[in-house]
Amino acid sequence: MGCAAVVRVPIAGPSDTSVLDGLRSAGLELERIRAVVGKTEGNGLVNDFSRELAARSWEQALTPNVLTVMSGGTEGVLSPHVTLLADVESADGPPGALALGMAASGVIEPAALGRRGQVDAVAAAVRRACVQAEVEPVALALALVKCPLLSSNEIAAARQGAVELVTDDGYESMGYSRAASALGVALAAGELDDAAVDAALRGERGLYSAVASTSAGREVRRCHVVVLGHSRTARGPLRATTVVMRDAIDAEPVARALEEIRASGGTLVQLFAKAEADPSGRIRNRRHTMLSDSDLHATRHARAAVGGLLAGLAADPMIYVSGGAEHQGPPGGGPVVLVWTLADQAAAPRS
Amino acid sequence: MGCAAVVRVPIAGPSDTSVLDGLRSAGLELERIRAVVGKTEGNGLVNDFSRELAARSWEQALTPNVLTVMSGGTEGVLSPHVTLLADVESADGPPGALALGMAASGVIEPAALGRRGQVDAVAAAVRRACVQAEVEPVALALALVKCPLLSSNEIAAARQGAVELVTDDGYESMGYSRAASALGVALAAGELDDAAVDAALRGERGLYSAVASTSAGREVRRCHVVVLGHSRTARGPLRATTVVMRDAIDAEPVARALEEIRASGGTLVQLFAKAEADPSGRIRNRRHTMLSDSDLHATRHARAAVGGLLAGLAADPMIYVSGGAEHQGPPGGGPVVLVWTLADQAAAPRS
Amino acid sequence: MGCAAVVRVPIAGPSDTSVLDGLRSAGLELERIRAVVGKTEGNGLVNDFSRELAARSWEQALTPNVLTVMSGGTEGVLSPHVTLLADVESADGPPGALALGMAASGVIEPAALGRRGQVDAVAAAVRRACVQAEVEPVALALALVKCPLLSSNEIAAARQGAVELVTDDGYESMGYSRAASALGVALAAGELDDAAVDAALRGERGLYSAVASTSAGREVRRCHVVVLGHSRTARGPLRATTVVMRDAIDAEPVARALEEIRASGGTLVQLFAKAEADPSGRIRNRRHTMLSDSDLHATRHARAAVGGLLAGLAADPMIYVSGGAEHQGPPGGGPVVLVWTLADQAAAPRS
Amino acid sequence: MGCAAVVRVPIAGPSDTSVLDGLRSAGLELERIRAVVGKTEGNGLVNDFSRELAARSWEQALTPNVLTVMSGGTEGVLSPHVTLLADVESADGPPGALALGMAASGVIEPAALGRRGQVDAVAAAVRRACVQAEVEPVALALALVKCPLLSSNEIAAARQGAVELVTDDGYESMGYSRAASALGVALAAGELDDAAVDAALRGERGLYSAVASTSAGREVRRCHVVVLGHSRTARGPLRATTVVMRDAIDAEPVARALEEIRASGGTLVQLFAKAEADPSGRIRNRRHTMLSDSDLHATRHARAAVGGLLAGLAADPMIYVSGGAEHQGPPGGGPVVLVWTLADQAAAPRS
Repeated sequence: MGCAAVVRVPIAGPSDTSVLDGLRSAGLELERIRAVVGKTEGNGLVNDFSRELAARSWEQALTPNVLTVMSGGTEGVLSPHVTLLADVESADGPPGALALGMAASGVIEPAALGRRGQVDAVAAAVRRACVQAEVEPVALALALVKCPLLSSNEIAAARQGAVELVTDDGYESMGYSRAASALGVALAAGELDDAAVDAALRGERGLYSAVASTSAGREVRRCHVVVLGHSRTARGPLRATTVVMRDAIDAEPVARALEEIRASGGTLVQLFAKAEADPSGRIRNRRHTMLSDSDLHATRHARAAVGGLLAGLAADPMIYVSGGAEHQGPPGGGPVVLVWTLADQAAAPRS
Repeated sequence: MGCAAVVRVPIAGPSDTSVLDGLRSAGLELERIRAVVGKTEGNGLVNDFSRELAARSWEQALTPNVLTVMSGGTEGVLSPHVTLLADVESADGPPGALALGMAASGVIEPAALGRRGQVDAVAAAVRRACVQAEVEPVALALALVKCPLLSSNEIAAARQGAVELVTDDGYESMGYSRAASALGVALAAGELDDAAVDAALRGERGLYSAVASTSAGREVRRCHVVVLGHSRTARGPLRATTVVMRDAIDAEPVARALEEIRASGGTLVQLFAKAEADPSGRIRNRRHTMLSDSDLHATRHARAAVGGLLAGLAADPMIYVSGGAEHQGPPGGGPVVLVWTLADQAAAPRS
Repeated sequence: MGCAAVVRVPIAGPSDTSVLDGLRSAGLELERIRAVVGKTEGNGLVNDFSRELAARSWEQALTPNVLTVMSGGTEGVLSPHVTLLADVESADGPPGALALGMAASGVIEPAALGRRGQVDAVAAAVRRACVQAEVEPVALALALVKCPLLSSNEIAAARQGAVELVTDDGYESMGYSRAASALGVALAAGELDDAAVDAALRGERGLYSAVASTSAGREVRRCHVVVLGHSRTARGPLRATTVVMRDAIDAEPVARALEEIRASGGTLVQLFAKAEADPSGRIRNRRHTMLSDSDLHATRHARAAVGGLLAGLAADPMIYVSGGAEHQGPPGGGPVVLVWTLADQAAAPRS
Repeated sequence: MGCAAVVRVPIAGPSDTSVLDGLRSAGLELERIRAVVGKTEGNGLVNDFSRELAARSWEQALTPNVLTVMSGGTEGVLSPHVTLLADVESADGPPGALALGMAASGVIEPAALGRRGQVDAVAAAVRRACVQAEVEPVALALALVKCPLLSSNEIAAARQGAVELVTDDGYESMGYSRAASALGVALAAGELDDAAVDAALRGERGLYSAVASTSAGREVRRCHVVVLGHSRTARGPLRATTVVMRDAIDAEPVARALEEIRASGGTLVQLFAKAEADPSGRIRNRRHTMLSDSDLHATRHARAAVGGLLAGLAADPMIYVSGGAEHQGPPGGGPVVLVWTLADQAAAPRS
């Protein structure tokens, strides 16, 4: 049984895979790379083609079977990069290391998108990924999901065929898809039960997963699922700390987690966060304008702001902050997952 | 000799001055309000009309003589608000309180904008404001400047008249105007000498003021200057701590200042910061994309990111973060001014 | 009984009313100006403050009772301007001239916005304006309506109070408000009956007014209605030709109307048009991208494109093209109203 | 000696090459396709990745040697598509048909970009392409050029190395690159001489090519040149009519050319146009706002507006309209090239 390796590398553009030469020279067996999780520099919205360009480029550079999760949007200080996730042989060290699992759902049909069909498809994929990783679902530290949106062609076709979709707006479909994926994670992880999932689908906002990080895009038709969790059987240097921000300026739990990692002698390898504009229109009872800014969608605002805060706390701008946190943490907040290496084994590669 | 009072209030929109009724009822003598410093919810760029709408609304609600500094852009978590600055009778308490001064330059002609003419005009206004405040220029804690930009009509007229302006691009003129204003502050405050100012005007980027906060807009033709500084003669509860962020994720000096204020029993009243995209294209040697994002100007990115960080540190989104920090702190960084009340006098109004 | 005068003037910015001095000198009695219809240079969306700035500026320059219809967005070649509508004494010339009428509804409560309540309020106002103009509703040439949107505060308040609004998205509320206003016009003008209006409110898209031009904004809480129609009792030089574009590139009816006006020796005074992105996602069976462009809302695209076409046909960029044509002309198309002067009376003021 | 074939096809997204299956079935020899000229649905600016995605997709679907010219931006009514240019055996019909030529320059070094080095490199490539096409340079109907821009990495590197580039702003570098490419075409076509080119490089705006259509992007480092011209030796059905718009609303020359084509029984196959915001800030002496809109770059405005006009005149939204027309037609205007088939041979493929 192997354990997870996490290698974070900068990219000069969405199609830049040139770092692989150096990694190969450095001894990384590239065929062990199972997933590529990227922040690319598009707008992160419906017409973000940086995601597709990056996904295709990494599939060509590695193998078509590598699972990609490309999240667009490096607003503010965020720095474009990819995180390569590999399954390596268990190293020395104490058990309970992070292990890696992956799975993909079938194609999500437009009529299922944002609905129970997608929830169940994601839940099943998360369960399979956990089995692969030998991680109990309740021990998940992070479940990344890349899921489809509704394209304008699909929306037009549905209108012709009198199929009623969850929305007829492409941008809104991203939110519905992220929401359904998050609920799928919550169901698989035992965070929500069936009734709660159905209530959430009916509009109840306060129900959430604390480990899901979901992102929608037109570059996929299936849901790609990548999980990290602590496994009793895996030995290795990597650990994760998962916290939840209560709102977009909730620095405290993250600062405390970072302090604990540092105090233990550990080294941060990567930080995965979700961010969103508080749907109430207010943060700490002060009005924000992310929802009334017609020049700039709210997810771009949220990535910039939360990315600025987290990069400041971590003293590192090359982190993964993704926008739109429906049912991922409480409304206006979101999960933050810190992946780090134990003190005496801090030699894990970090570009 | 009076001292400064600082009252921060939320607004429901750029033209919302309704808070004045409550303040009057609460006993504030509105005629003592000398300046209104606002964050309005436009784009903060050339075609931001929220600034003009706010400036006109507050002039009408108070007096045409009130000096306005309206900074557009409340990206991310930032919350629209105004900070009312009043000159009140010296209160009890130790001397060395914050005092307030104001001045306006003459009209900045297009040919002078961004050049030595503007620098000198601002320097003279800062000196007058310091005299008014009874603050030594070297004791300045903050010098806010609102300065003009080049309108498309002015650019077209200059082209007809063969006048060579510092730039023929309206957006770029905002940066040149902010730069010249900042150099004027630095000159008046003794931070830079004549030769350094001229070097800065020729393009040397590393020369800066640590107390300037300048903002450009089409709603003014003169430069509005508002200064806060500690005065030996003023007694009152307000103090300021001025620090400089070295880059856009430099959380540490701000966190330390906040900690010191809290440790002393003080209460934060307002935070004034400048933010910008690092002109090198990199932060901590990681690439950022603020300068290559053609959908969104860099100042909007910078306000969102630094606003997110500072709001998180201060646990308060209703702060003043302004974008474009040319010669205000080092390249990519900027000054941060924390205004706070002493422990036993923390009753200063704060909405 | 008077007739309408239409004076179109350029503006240097949203608050520029300086043209009034010249008009007064030229003999125009400013107190006869009853309505100001403007194209201002904001984004035309939720956070467009150029509209409010213009409305307040013209109310201050003329009278608080003047009725403003400020439409934001001068994308592409469109040129910022206002059209002043005055009620002047009937001039010489044949009867059947254009006459002017105005009315305002009461405040549109958030719960009524986009629904039958708003439809009926607008219909009643249109009827009153027609009575004032002495124009039969069926003889309407143009009915301009400025109507409110749902602000983020209203949306938040409704959520607290469990009031269900027609939408909880500010941008979408603009479309619902325009739609309801257009249906109110259609009802008053006899273009649609009660059953058709209800069907349209339930989502049937093909039902429309051919004379409505409605625009939503946060600067009004009531609906402002301005009508122009041919009146049997009015004598004067102005006439109007109303045509309908079937889609956004339907040049032919406009070109033909312009040709007929020119052939008769008439002179175009102003052109009022509505434009929208075809909701099917296609124009002449070719895919357009206005609905999948997350950087730029569809109404901005539509104004730019249709404005370019109409300005080219009219050889004049200072025309009124407003975005979002729900129930104003067929889906993807919109009404175009050409106001012109008869041949021998072409001396009507035109800046 | 062959002649040109021009096949225009819609695409469902930047990576959609699926139309090739149908074309192959219909008998088109795909290996004869020498160039792919596309309008892709990105923003057409620095961070438009739709161009690179399309270029890579077509190179993979055809051959790495196919020359791509991908122009981003389908604002307004414009419809994403590619125009496939093939070199086919001379058909029946009169001589003087359109012939096709292609060439690529060497890599344009950053220091040469926007300067004489790029001009000369493009001029040489245009001459080679004309030789290949057997077209006299003075008989050119259209010279398409895809040229590089300055990336943020190149700008940063130049600053380190104290190399002075023509600009240190990526967006501006697109304009400089387009300008130099257009001057290269003008030089090769004999429209401008060396002295005029140098004057243009020093800032004289009125000097232009009437056949150049240049587009900049980060997806190329060399300049790709594709020419179409009437050749004495080529027989075939295709002809081109080249006109120049004097400003962005100059409908007349295009309308007349379309009328002549229709009158002759010809059929329009494709229309290639350049568009720009008039640098004077005015069109027909009316102010436009394309240069002061900080939310939306001027080239996007210009494509939308001119695209709307030309699509209306041609009754077809699937046309090629590219933004930024420096030295391509007079300031504010641009060349328009109509490719059409003779009356009795109108069977050329047109999707």
